[in-house]
Amino acid sequence: MSRKEEFMPPWSDEAPEAGSYRSVFKWGDPSGFKHPNRKLYRYMKEQFRLTDDDFRVRVREGREKVSLAGMPSRLETKHRTALAAIVGDENAADDDYSRVFYSVGKTQEEAFELREGVVKHAADLILHPRNTDDVVAVVRYCDDHRIPLYVYGGGSSVNFGFRPMAGGVMVVMNTHMNRLLEVNELNKTATVEAGMLGPAYESALNRAKELFGTKRNYTNGHFPQSFEYSSVGGWVATLGSGQESSYYGDAYDLVMGVEMVTPRGVINTHVYPATATGPKILDMIKGSEGTYGIITRLTMKIFYLSDETKYGGAYVFKDWETAVTVCREISQGEFGFPGVLRISDEEETDMGLRLYGVAGTPLDTIMKLFGFREMKRCLMLFRTCGEKHFSKNVYRQVKKICRRHGGLPLTSYPVKKWDHGRYLDPYLREDLNDFGMVLDTTECGVTWENLHRVHAEVRRFVKSRPLTGCLTHASHFYPEGTNLYFIFFCKVKDMEDYISLQNGIFEAIQRAGGSLSHHHGVGRMIAPWMEEHLGKNETDVLKLLKNHFDPNGIFNPGGQMGLDYRPGDLNGRDWRGIRR
Amino acid sequence: MSRKEEFMPPWSDEAPEAGSYRSVFKWGDPSGFKHPNRKLYRYMKEQFRLTDDDFRVRVREGREKVSLAGMPSRLETKHRTALAAIVGDENAADDDYSRVFYSVGKTQEEAFELREGVVKHAADLILHPRNTDDVVAVVRYCDDHRIPLYVYGGGSSVNFGFRPMAGGVMVVMNTHMNRLLEVNELNKTATVEAGMLGPAYESALNRAKELFGTKRNYTNGHFPQSFEYSSVGGWVATLGSGQESSYYGDAYDLVMGVEMVTPRGVINTHVYPATATGPKILDMIKGSEGTYGIITRLTMKIFYLSDETKYGGAYVFKDWETAVTVCREISQGEFGFPGVLRISDEEETDMGLRLYGVAGTPLDTIMKLFGFREMKRCLMLFRTCGEKHFSKNVYRQVKKICRRHGGLPLTSYPVKKWDHGRYLDPYLREDLNDFGMVLDTTECGVTWENLHRVHAEVRRFVKSRPLTGCLTHASHFYPEGTNLYFIFFCKVKDMEDYISLQNGIFEAIQRAGGSLSHHHGVGRMIAPWMEEHLGKNETDVLKLLKNHFDPNGIFNPGGQMGLDYRPGDLNGRDWRGIRR
Repeated sequence: MSRKEEFMPPWSDEAPEAGSYRSVFKWGDPSGFKHPNRKLYRYMKEQFRLTDDDFRVRVREGREKVSLAGMPSRLETKHRTALAAIVGDENAADDDYSRVFYSVGKTQEEAFELREGVVKHAADLILHPRNTDDVVAVVRYCDDHRIPLYVYGGGSSVNFGFRPMAGGVMVVMNTHMNRLLEVNELNKTATVEAGMLGPAYESALNRAKELFGTKRNYTNGHFPQSFEYSSVGGWVATLGSGQESSYYGDAYDLVMGVEMVTPRGVINTHVYPATATGPKILDMIKGSEGTYGIITRLTMKIFYLSDETKYGGAYVFKDWETAVTVCREISQGEFGFPGVLRISDEEETDMGLRLYGVAGTPLDTIMKLFGFREMKRCLMLFRTCGEKHFSKNVYRQVKKICRRHGGLPLTSYPVKKWDHGRYLDPYLREDLNDFGMVLDTTECGVTWENLHRVHAEVRRFVKSRPLTGCLTHASHFYPEGTNLYFIFFCKVKDMEDYISLQNGIFEAIQRAGGSLSHHHGVGRMIAPWMEEHLGKNETDVLKLLKNHFDPNGIFNPGGQMGLDYRPGDLNGRDWRGIRR
Repeated sequence: MSRKEEFMPPWSDEAPEAGSYRSVFKWGDPSGFKHPNRKLYRYMKEQFRLTDDDFRVRVREGREKVSLAGMPSRLETKHRTALAAIVGDENAADDDYSRVFYSVGKTQEEAFELREGVVKHAADLILHPRNTDDVVAVVRYCDDHRIPLYVYGGGSSVNFGFRPMAGGVMVVMNTHMNRLLEVNELNKTATVEAGMLGPAYESALNRAKELFGTKRNYTNGHFPQSFEYSSVGGWVATLGSGQESSYYGDAYDLVMGVEMVTPRGVINTHVYPATATGPKILDMIKGSEGTYGIITRLTMKIFYLSDETKYGGAYVFKDWETAVTVCREISQGEFGFPGVLRISDEEETDMGLRLYGVAGTPLDTIMKLFGFREMKRCLMLFRTCGEKHFSKNVYRQVKKICRRHGGLPLTSYPVKKWDHGRYLDPYLREDLNDFGMVLDTTECGVTWENLHRVHAEVRRFVKSRPLTGCLTHASHFYPEGTNLYFIFFCKVKDMEDYISLQNGIFEAIQRAGGSLSHHHGVGRMIAPWMEEHLGKNETDVLKLLKNHFDPNGIFNPGGQMGLDYRPGDLNGRDWRGIRR
C-alpha cells in the first residue's frame, strides 16, 4: 500500500474546548499534539492484532463542559469567606471548573473518568496563596476547623498524590508562589518558591547573569519528563528524578534546605554542606508527599550551564544482559557519571528501531549480520556533561566499556533524536486513549543484584495477559543499581481490568525485590503495599511523623501513602476498595 | 645552644601500667608514642611564653590502679545474672577496670579526671553480645526492667557520646560483633557488623579477593583520624567524616542500609540505590548517636582499591582568603573531587612550616621573596583518587586553579609527610597533658558564605584569652561549603577555665552561622545548644523519634543530644551544670 492510500486514524487536532473535561486531562499545551506516526501506528496494529477498523471511531472524548452539578461545595460559607479573606477574594475560587481542574492529576484512570464526565472527588475551595504568611494563616484556619487540605504543585501526579478524597481546600502553589528568590553564587545554590514550575525555574537560572547579576549562568539539573508541569516543591515532596540524574542527582540530592508550614508551626532547616547534629529534619520532609505540611520555599543546588561540554553517543548490544553489564561498569567505574544514560530492553529497542526508521534499512541488515538479532538486541543512549575534560573522559570511558562488550556504535543521532522529543511522549497518550487503548507507566528502584529478577518477573506477569505491550528502560544510574521504568499499553476490557494489570505489576516488583517506586512517589496508588514493603516498624515511623506534624489529620487525608490507614481498613483490597 | 645541650622535656616512654587509669585514657597502642619534636617544643615555649622549667616535672599521670571503691555496681544481682545468662557469663563483666575502661571516651576532660583518679560515671555492667539475637534479648530485658543502656563502638567519642550518666549496662560492640559478613561485588557494597573497627574492616576489604573470592580488592573510603579506634556503626551513628571524604563521601553518604534493635522491635531498612517511597527511615537513624537503639549491622558502599591512581601535591597561597577561594573553585568545578583536600589557616601554616622544617630554610627565603609572608601565607595539600584519567584530570584542574590564584607549588612532599603521620597526632596529647597543657579540637560545617565570619569569630574569641593557640584547617569539601576544624591548646587554670574556652567556641560558631558539628557529633557536649541551633520545632521532631523508638528512655539517658532535657533542665547552664 502506498503512503497516500494508507489509512491513518483520525487523530484529534482540535484543542479542547475551554471549560471542557478534555481541557482538564489533556497533557500540556492545549494546541500541542504529537500523534503516533505511521510506523508507530503500524507497530500497534501488528503487536495488538488490531485493524484499521479499530481506529475509525474515537471513544468519548470528554468535550462536554465540566459540571459538578451533583457535587456542590460542602464547605460552610463562613469558612469560604474566612479563607478567601486570607488570600484575597481574587485568589479563592469554587466554580466547577476550578474545582475539577485543580483536583485531577495525570493518571490514566482519571483521564478515562473525565472522558465519561465522572469526577469522583473534587476540592470544595481552591486557594492561591501569595506568600508564606498566607499559607501559615490558611493552615492555621484549616487546622482549627478541621478542614482537609491538599496541595497542588504542578498537577502532574501519576498516583493520585493530591486527589482530594475528603473534599476541603486545595492550595495551589504555582499561581503566585513561583519566584526564584535568590541565586547564591558563592554557595552555588538557589532559593526558590515551591510552586515555581520547571521551565520558569530553569530559564531564570539560565539567565542568572541578566536577572541576578551573577558571573555565570546556571542550570538546575533536574529534568523529569513532567518538567513542564511539575514544581520544585513537588520534585522534593515526591522524590522526583530527572533524565540527567545520574550526573546531577535526584531531587533528594539537590535540595539543601526547606521551609515547610505545618499545623505544628513552620519548619525551617538550615543550609549546611554537611552537619553532624543528629538526624536531619530535612530528610524527613523529602518524600512526605503533602502529608506533613506545605513546602513553601526551597534552597537547591545549582550547576554551571555548559551545553558546549556535552558529548553524546549511542550503542546497540547483543542482549539486555550485556547492556545492563555495560551500565553497571559505567556506574561503578569511578570516573564520574554521564548526565544521560539509558538502556532499552529488547521490546523497547525493537519499537525504538522501528520508530527511528532503522528497521528494514541497510543499517538493520548490518546489525543482523553482526549478530544483533531482533528482539534480543538492546539500545543504549548516553550524553556526558560537566567540566570539559571531565566530560570528555567520561565519554571516552563509556565508549571503552561499550567496545569491550561488543557494542555497535550508532553515532550520536539517536541521542539528539531523544533529546528533541523527550518532553513530547506524554502527548501520545490522548491519541491512544481516543481509541480505547491505555498507555501507562510504572517504575521502581533496583539493585544490580535484583535487576534481572524484577525485569523478568514484571514481564512474565504482563505477558501472561493478552496482547499487552511492555517496554522497559533503565535511565537513572547509581553505583549500587538503577531504576526500571515500564511502559505498558493494551486494550483493556474496562477500568477494573486495567487496574488489575497495574496492581499485578506492583506485586511483581514487590515479590522480586524492587523498590515500589523510584521517582513517581507513593500517592494513593501504591499506598496499600507500603506496610508490606517497608515493614510495620518502618511504616509506624512515617505515621508517627505524620501524626506529629498534623495532629488533626487535615493534610492530604484519604489514604495518601497509607499513612491514615487503620488496621483492617484495606483487608486485601487496594485503595479504591477493589480486591487485590 | 647546640642540639646536644638543648633541654628536652622528660616525655614519658613508659607504656601505662596494666589496670591503671593511664591505660584507660592513653591514646592508641600502649607502647606507641609520638612526642613533640624539638621544633614543636620550641614553638610551644615561644608561643605560650613558657620556659624549660615548665617542662621539668610531669603532672599527675594516672599511673595508679583503677578503683571504683566508692562506686559499687548498683545493678541488682538478679538483673546481673539474667543479663549475663543472655550473652554468656564470659561476656559479662563488672570488675572495676572493665567498668571504667568501657565508660570513658576521648575528651580532654575525661583524661584529666582520670589522671586524678576521678571517675564521675561508670556503667554497672559491661556486656559483650555475640550477635543480633543477644542484642535483641538484652534490649528487651533492659526495657522491661528500665535499665539504662549505653553502646560502646570503638570508644573514641570526643563529646561524652556514651558517658553512662545513669549507670546501667554498657553494650560493647567491638568484641564479637566485628565481622565483615559479605562483599557484594555486583552492588559494590559490603555488609558488616556494627562493632568492626576501621583497620580490620579496611584490611578485610583490601583483601577481598582472598577472603571473599571477589574479582577485585576494595577500600571502604572512610578514614577519620579516629580510624583505629572507631567502629563502622559508630561512624554512621555519629555522622563521621573521613580524611578523604571529599571524594568518597561522609558516613552519611556511605551507608546504604542498617539493622537497628530498639525497644519497639528491629528496624531493617532495605538496600536500594534510590527509592521514592516516602521519607527514609535510614536517614532518621543516621546520626541518632545511641539514643534510638543499637545499630547491629550495616550495608556500606565500597570502592575499588586503587593506590596507583593517586596524585598528590601541595601549594602555598598568599593568604587564607585566597586558599579558601581556590578550594571553592575546586569544589565547584564540576570535574569531581580530590580525595584529600586540606587548607591550613595562617597560624596552622606557620606551625606546619616550622614542624616540616621549612621555616628558616632557603625555601622560606624564596617564599618570602615572592610575597608569601609569615602569618599570612596558607598551605594547601591535596591528593586525587578514582579511575586513572579521572584522577589525573582532577590533579590537572586543581593545579590550574592553584596557579591562577598565584599558588607556589611545594612538590608532593608535604602530602606524603601528612599521609604518614595522619593517625599519629592524637599521640601528642598525653605528652602535653603530662605538663598541664590542654590540646583539644572542635569543628563545624560552614557554607562558603559564612566561612570567613565563623573563622574570624572563633579566632577573635580564642585570641581574647591569654596565650591560647588556635590552628584551623578545612578538610572536607562540598560544592556548597566545607568544614572548619579548630585545634586549640594552652595552659589552663583549671577545668572550669578550660570548659569556658570550649563553650565560648561553640557560641562563636553558633553566632557566626556555622553548624555546631561537622563530624564529631553532638554527644552531651553541644547538646545544650541543640534547640537554639536547630530550632524548637526541629528539635521536637528528634525528641518525638526518641520517645517512639525508646518509650521508656533507657537508651543513652542523661542529656545525650539534649533529647531527654525537659524545659528548665538547663537554665543557662551547660550539661555539666556550669553556668554558660
